[in-house]
Amino acid sequence: MTYLEAAEFLKKHDRYLLLTHIRPDGDTIGSAVALCEMLRCIGKTAWLLPSLDITSLLEPYLDGYVAGESFVPETVISVDVASRDLLPQNAEKYADHVKFCIDHHPSNTFYAEETCLEAEKAACGEIIWKICKLFNVMNPAIAVPLYVAISTDTGCFVYSNTTPNSHRVAAELMEMDVPYQALNKIHFRTKSMARLQLESMLMQSVKLFYDGTVAMATVSLSMMKEAGATEDDAEDIASLIGQIKGVLHSITIRELHEKECKISLRTNPEYLDAAATCARLGGGGHAAASGCTVYGDIQETETAIMDAVRAQLAEQQQI
Amino acid sequence: MTYLEAAEFLKKHDRYLLLTHIRPDGDTIGSAVALCEMLRCIGKTAWLLPSLDITSLLEPYLDGYVAGESFVPETVISVDVASRDLLPQNAEKYADHVKFCIDHHPSNTFYAEETCLEAEKAACGEIIWKICKLFNVMNPAIAVPLYVAISTDTGCFVYSNTTPNSHRVAAELMEMDVPYQALNKIHFRTKSMARLQLESMLMQSVKLFYDGTVAMATVSLSMMKEAGATEDDAEDIASLIGQIKGVLHSITIRELHEKECKISLRTNPEYLDAAATCARLGGGGHAAASGCTVYGDIQETETAIMDAVRAQLAEQQQI
Repeated sequence: MTYLEAAEFLKKHDRYLLLTHIRPDGDTIGSAVALCEMLRCIGKTAWLLPSLDITSLLEPYLDGYVAGESFVPETVISVDVASRDLLPQNAEKYADHVKFCIDHHPSNTFYAEETCLEAEKAACGEIIWKICKLFNVMNPAIAVPLYVAISTDTGCFVYSNTTPNSHRVAAELMEMDVPYQALNKIHFRTKSMARLQLESMLMQSVKLFYDGTVAMATVSLSMMKEAGATEDDAEDIASLIGQIKGVLHSITIRELHEKECKISLRTNPEYLDAAATCARLGGGGHAAASGCTVYGDIQETETAIMDAVRAQLAEQQQI
Repeated sequence: MTYLEAAEFLKKHDRYLLLTHIRPDGDTIGSAVALCEMLRCIGKTAWLLPSLDITSLLEPYLDGYVAGESFVPETVISVDVASRDLLPQNAEKYADHVKFCIDHHPSNTFYAEETCLEAEKAACGEIIWKICKLFNVMNPAIAVPLYVAISTDTGCFVYSNTTPNSHRVAAELMEMDVPYQALNKIHFRTKSMARLQLESMLMQSVKLFYDGTVAMATVSLSMMKEAGATEDDAEDIASLIGQIKGVLHSITIRELHEKECKISLRTNPEYLDAAATCARLGGGGHAAASGCTVYGDIQETETAIMDAVRAQLAEQQQI
């Protein structure tokens, strides 16, 4: 569906319920809130399905947009949701009745009746921005969540998905009274003391293998306790050691309980297939990012994953 | 001097020597290299004075642009250099003969004969970009160093100095065959093991004051030694502790030599003017980011800067 057809669709229908994806991020929330506000600006009734597991950082953006239990929707739209199984549990009854999906994931499965897919866009927010422009509707209540959508999905314009369009849309949004300095500070330049302590301890635990191409680090229960860290503080900590110069593959071990460790493996799949490696320990995921669980202590987990890495590197003829 | 006057100046003169500032960063190097290339494109002879203390990350950009010893300049231009004392030692003989200064620092002292100052620009690279546009000269050899200049001075579009113009210029540069994905990875998503160890130790040294709004941390000579860190590894480490949740103002102390410490102060200038604070210790800079040197040990430096912070907070009626 083209942008113009998308606009026609939105003009024609009403009583919208907007769905976001599981473990909601800034793009799904920001895009859905912006679309909701835009629909209201053109006289429609629109609400978001309550988001489960939303982080405290994103929750404030939902204020005033969450559907009450009595709301009976006519038109269900999913925003930034690539496939049916990425819909949250409370969206189950709508899963077979998604009228329209707006998304930027190349992996979109076309589960909705109609789909507006722009796979070259860094963020779904860039698509919503274009739709808003077609309606000639733009104001701070739309611009703020769109800036959050685009900036968070590009890691604030640093990830490799960033495009010139991301920058141009950001520039226009910033001029709409968006407090982007405060938003950047909150989303990208603020860490709890506990998180920073945890990162610090994680770094002290790094071990390097295979000429520094493989890094392994651990977050133990005692480290969590010492840092005073919560689950929020440990969020996405597996991305940290991949930054080490020369490291191609990184293993982060989280001790979840005594004798239970979760492994996060991030790799350059050309040299080491993360999914195949984790499959050796009963796990799985993507070629570049996978996980598995080992029922053992940290020492046993380290041995298990290094055995799996060695076997997989051998299979891919890297050693 | 306006942009048009700047362009006239550059057209009129020749045999340019371009000066960068001490402890050169991506903006001074990227801006000077881009200007050098642009001047060559319009038929001028132009070289950079060799940059002392350049980081290994920035050194490659200088390739082909550094003046040999035999070069006799006619016109000396300083790029991104706010004051005479920010010129490096090897620029001393030119310090009184700077014909033209292109800069974006509000603290510029107008030490040059002519100055083109655009204090609202995030990076000096944005000024050079505008000048290149006036000459209608743009190619990858100019676009790459300009992207480096603007992206590094804005922390990849996350710092509060970022403006819509920074984004728009970035978008145009990215379309000039700039390998921005690789550049972003190298400049913002790669850290040496020594750097990460140093960050880890820095975090362990954090002290909080004024209800956690002021954070102070130290990089001592012994920490540098223990981490096996070089100057490169310590680059811009002052931005780290400002990330701590609740911190408004951050003080990072670098012990440079025995009895010589450099202070980097980053603040929310509404509550604490960094330039005014550092001026109390003979330093200066921007309202949100300034520096000064204390000839004393770490303990003495801590006391000196906390005294200056207290005096400035009192003057701004914050305490």
